[in-house]
Amino acid sequence: MNASDLINGILAGERRALSRAISHVEADSPTGREVLEALYPRTGHAQVVGITGSAGAGKSTLVGAIAREERKRGRTVGIVAVDPSSPFSHGAILGDRIRMQDLTGDGGVFLRSMASRGNLGGLSETATGVADVMDAAGFDVVLIETVGAGQDEVEVANAAGTTVLVANPGGGDDVQSMKAGLMEVAQVMVVNKADLAGADTAVTQLRGLLAIADLGPWEPPILKAIARTAEGVPELVDAIDRHQAFFRESEHAEGERRRHAERQVLAITRAILHREALATARASGALADLVSQVAARSRDPRNAAEELLEAVRREWAAG
Amino acid sequence: MNASDLINGILAGERRALSRAISHVEADSPTGREVLEALYPRTGHAQVVGITGSAGAGKSTLVGAIAREERKRGRTVGIVAVDPSSPFSHGAILGDRIRMQDLTGDGGVFLRSMASRGNLGGLSETATGVADVMDAAGFDVVLIETVGAGQDEVEVANAAGTTVLVANPGGGDDVQSMKAGLMEVAQVMVVNKADLAGADTAVTQLRGLLAIADLGPWEPPILKAIARTAEGVPELVDAIDRHQAFFRESEHAEGERRRHAERQVLAITRAILHREALATARASGALADLVSQVAARSRDPRNAAEELLEAVRREWAAG
Repeated sequence: MNASDLINGILAGERRALSRAISHVEADSPTGREVLEALYPRTGHAQVVGITGSAGAGKSTLVGAIAREERKRGRTVGIVAVDPSSPFSHGAILGDRIRMQDLTGDGGVFLRSMASRGNLGGLSETATGVADVMDAAGFDVVLIETVGAGQDEVEVANAAGTTVLVANPGGGDDVQSMKAGLMEVAQVMVVNKADLAGADTAVTQLRGLLAIADLGPWEPPILKAIARTAEGVPELVDAIDRHQAFFRESEHAEGERRRHAERQVLAITRAILHREALATARASGALADLVSQVAARSRDPRNAAEELLEAVRREWAAG
Repeated sequence: MNASDLINGILAGERRALSRAISHVEADSPTGREVLEALYPRTGHAQVVGITGSAGAGKSTLVGAIAREERKRGRTVGIVAVDPSSPFSHGAILGDRIRMQDLTGDGGVFLRSMASRGNLGGLSETATGVADVMDAAGFDVVLIETVGAGQDEVEVANAAGTTVLVANPGGGDDVQSMKAGLMEVAQVMVVNKADLAGADTAVTQLRGLLAIADLGPWEPPILKAIARTAEGVPELVDAIDRHQAFFRESEHAEGERRRHAERQVLAITRAILHREALATARASGALADLVSQVAARSRDPRNAAEELLEAVRREWAAG
């Protein structure tokens, strides 16, 4: 199937075309780019919701519970699960699939797992694209689940209009180590496993972090939930809906959409820039020379990095 | 004090000069760069050891225990503690300081806390530089402790010759979500809190991850320790010493030093590149235009990112 077959298939609601188009977007193929360009003007219907937080926070279970609640409300749901590049993740995916069997048997739900691409930052490019394709395909809600807690997560959060940060009760170490950057891209906070001791402490800690974060006009609500039993999940979906209304309809909507678009563009720019600079540096031989000097301690790494950038920029200017 | 005063002071063992020079390096001031350039040829004596792992793994306690063990062995110790940018971290620093009171009263130990700089990747630049200054100042061992689990951590690990990955017993979620990238920069693995149930499972999981990681000729040992009681800490320091000997003296030493230098240079290059591209994009007005088009859905984010990069490269070529 070529790009226009895929596009027509997706707009006709064909799952096979959708699945193939996503593979192209994930591989960043020319067909994938063509599909994205053609479909982008048709995006904007879906609520694109990122679910993020550290490992073990129960994000998969929460994604399942949110999807069930959205289905009860008559909405179709696309799920993008971003897994770490470890082969263990295959086990985790399988586990999630079993837990989500009722969902995967439901024609109103479409699940796609993506492998993380390691350190090159490519995830933000592809997760954004895959969510856009699902959006154009007509899903009412697109849930993006990310695993891990760091730069990648902040970047994947950029793909979402609404990002939900999942925290847990516990020593508070988790909440304490959350990055200001992550706090600032989350519009809804939820303390999952709220039946465990320390849930209220976690809420208080999140409130403290929010008090010092650099927030816009939206004040993120802090909720409690038990994903396993779906307790608190309707309220969570209500909060997501409220943020979506703010994002689309309030006096701040245009500013919010611009902030969101800027985050997306910059995350992708960074990934491409880094990849191209690395390729240029390796091809020119400048990297190998400078590495030798640093290894011999005749040049410090900071100075070598500046030289390397100069070399890359000269190559680019020479065209 | 100007740069040469600072350099002379550091080489004479003055703590005040060391402390001020580190502030300059952290602020990336011209004086800081001058100090780094002058001192870099005098680095290479210290064992630079990164201690990394997720929040709550007990890294601070382990750093304290390692420092005490190194002191018993007659070595001086510099400690660089990298904290998240949240104000909560001030509390954590205070807590660590209390736990480390015996160390901070010891003239053979020098502790420095650094604030994380958020998402711009600046941490790898400054942590590397601060470790280099401590190395040139004559410390036998420099321990770099990082909090969090993501891209930043991988970058800070780049500053260290030996990186120790701290894991914990437990559901295995932590170990499962560890990035392949992080596994590949760690040369020693330790399961801390080994008196808790599941320690052997965590060891087995780490072994499984190592089996599939893209490793060089060094095979990372996997140890167990209880930082609180210092159990297993002498064995951990022995393992660090073995890796340092490999890094310095084995037939693979030159290759290892080159790999290490390359990681350092690339991490700093990425941080500078991203910062400069962002400044150029904002100054040129290209970013604002493209963001408007994406917000209006007339251009997809991927396409906008490519246009933005073109604009940045044109500016650089003209500049």
